[in-house]
Amino acid sequence: MDQYIGKQSIKFTNPPSILGAGSIVGPKEGKGPLRDYFDQVLQDDLWGEDTWEKAETKLVKESMKLALKHANKTIEDIRYIFAGDLLNQLVATTFAIREFNTPFFGLYGACSTMGESIQLASMAISGGFADYTLAATSSHFCGAEKQFRFPLEYGSQRPLTATWTVTGSGAVVLGKQGQGPFVTAITTGKIVDLGITDPMNMGAAMAPAAADTLVQHFKDLGTSPDDYDLIITGDLGSIGNQLMKELVEKEGYYLHQGFTDCGIEIFDANTQDTHAGGSGCGCSAVTLTGYLLQEMKNDKYKSILFIPTGALLSTLSTQQGESIPGIAHAVVIQKYKG
Amino acid sequence: MDQYIGKQSIKFTNPPSILGAGSIVGPKEGKGPLRDYFDQVLQDDLWGEDTWEKAETKLVKESMKLALKHANKTIEDIRYIFAGDLLNQLVATTFAIREFNTPFFGLYGACSTMGESIQLASMAISGGFADYTLAATSSHFCGAEKQFRFPLEYGSQRPLTATWTVTGSGAVVLGKQGQGPFVTAITTGKIVDLGITDPMNMGAAMAPAAADTLVQHFKDLGTSPDDYDLIITGDLGSIGNQLMKELVEKEGYYLHQGFTDCGIEIFDANTQDTHAGGSGCGCSAVTLTGYLLQEMKNDKYKSILFIPTGALLSTLSTQQGESIPGIAHAVVIQKYKG
Repeated sequence: MDQYIGKQSIKFTNPPSILGAGSIVGPKEGKGPLRDYFDQVLQDDLWGEDTWEKAETKLVKESMKLALKHANKTIEDIRYIFAGDLLNQLVATTFAIREFNTPFFGLYGACSTMGESIQLASMAISGGFADYTLAATSSHFCGAEKQFRFPLEYGSQRPLTATWTVTGSGAVVLGKQGQGPFVTAITTGKIVDLGITDPMNMGAAMAPAAADTLVQHFKDLGTSPDDYDLIITGDLGSIGNQLMKELVEKEGYYLHQGFTDCGIEIFDANTQDTHAGGSGCGCSAVTLTGYLLQEMKNDKYKSILFIPTGALLSTLSTQQGESIPGIAHAVVIQKYKG
Repeated sequence: MDQYIGKQSIKFTNPPSILGAGSIVGPKEGKGPLRDYFDQVLQDDLWGEDTWEKAETKLVKESMKLALKHANKTIEDIRYIFAGDLLNQLVATTFAIREFNTPFFGLYGACSTMGESIQLASMAISGGFADYTLAATSSHFCGAEKQFRFPLEYGSQRPLTATWTVTGSGAVVLGKQGQGPFVTAITTGKIVDLGITDPMNMGAAMAPAAADTLVQHFKDLGTSPDDYDLIITGDLGSIGNQLMKELVEKEGYYLHQGFTDCGIEIFDANTQDTHAGGSGCGCSAVTLTGYLLQEMKNDKYKSILFIPTGALLSTLSTQQGESIPGIAHAVVIQKYKG
């Protein structure tokens, strides 16, 4: 029974249900506009560990445990974990789950990983390969700055186009049966590279990929912006958000007020000095697992188009003069089955 | 229709067919025992590029093109690419496919990536999500030494437990219909960490994960070593191979002469100075796409259990005193549907 539709999308014959979610964020995110939505806010960036990377590992492990608890499941119920993070060789994720004894698919989609993991975790269920799956991702401001940019101790000045990597981890448990919300459709992104080379302007680098996935989503499913209460990208920030709006409008789709970006929502750019907004795998992950799913429960949203965005660069590709390819994966989350 | 079986395995209701494969290797691999099986052997490690990483990107792109050609398909036929590599943020893969315009799932399973990619590419087909998928991976000796170990210019002495990262890329095109060989079953690995901390002895670090997946595979499918013409792990090398044999025999399964490792087969350790054997994502990938699939055509093998193995460390995890978690993903490839 084929479940695919159009060029890049799937409409699930048996939409998986989101059974539970977990969200943990760092202190800065805990002072932002979404602070009351998160399960847990850390008091400091190390969380009792001796390195930032070990703190990120703990974030992943604990957000997964929260998702399991809220789903009323144990790790033994989970057939597959789909997860990854920004650290080289995904060490936050792999060290987090090494005691879990659960089959694992390691993913790298940069900051689009929450989209990638939910897509594959949903396919595993709707394809008849699992009853329960877990999808998760994380990022840590200090670890990301250290790995991708400059040592924090330098106190480097950040340009206004730069975004602020979110410290946080989000996880969801998906199930074959459940009361919803449901993952009803997905559009898998392809790599789009329009030649942006400035790693301090990732919003601009990722906007064309996000626009590409969104327009393809509308075409594949025969929908328009009016079919969703909210269309929310991952971490384009304010500059990327505006660019994407223009690109999508050129294709004939007008993005009305229900269009925003997790990186815009998670920080107050005016008071929190985060410049263009939040970013990192954790940005879209905790905005979904904290804010969006809660507001779906509250009946504010019934149909969300969630589009995490990723910039597929490395320090080495930038050093070698390469541009920054982007990718974006879209996930439709609906309160009711359709 | 549930396709899973036992704790960690899937027996495909509609086994995907391997329609075509591509294999390209570096000069050293081209002097090894399997030299006549590869589609292409490079004359030098740079292949006309100005960096090793760009050469690896070219390896991925060209091995994918070869797989497509041998499958008599074009990239437009492919619904999803499942791929990844060892370089930080998977830049060999992402830069290789950025012009392909194909939906992409980025994977990181260290040297188990060929197993991970074939598993997910097969699930996508048997789950009704795609007619054609592409699975691939790569590694490059020079890029891996530079990133994980020491600058080549140091001329560091390698201990006898060390393996030699294969320069090469392998790709397969999978299809819903076809004449075989078929991917009939898979067993997805979980992370196993018995506390090995020596990054120069990765065979020992990965052997417990390989043994765990293999034993679970036998239990889930109710099979034994006698059911396969060949059981071949990814890159345990000679030391890991022996360790794994002992671990599996402790569980009551005797691994007879049809048991080996891609890292043992690809180099002649006596004359090529590769110590414990070959390793890297490319090791199992090219051994499969070059040697194994060819010998299946020649009727030497009818049923192969292929188990790529990965060590989930990073330079940072080692610097922070962590041990080396391993993972192994098993894939059953059969000449006939069963």
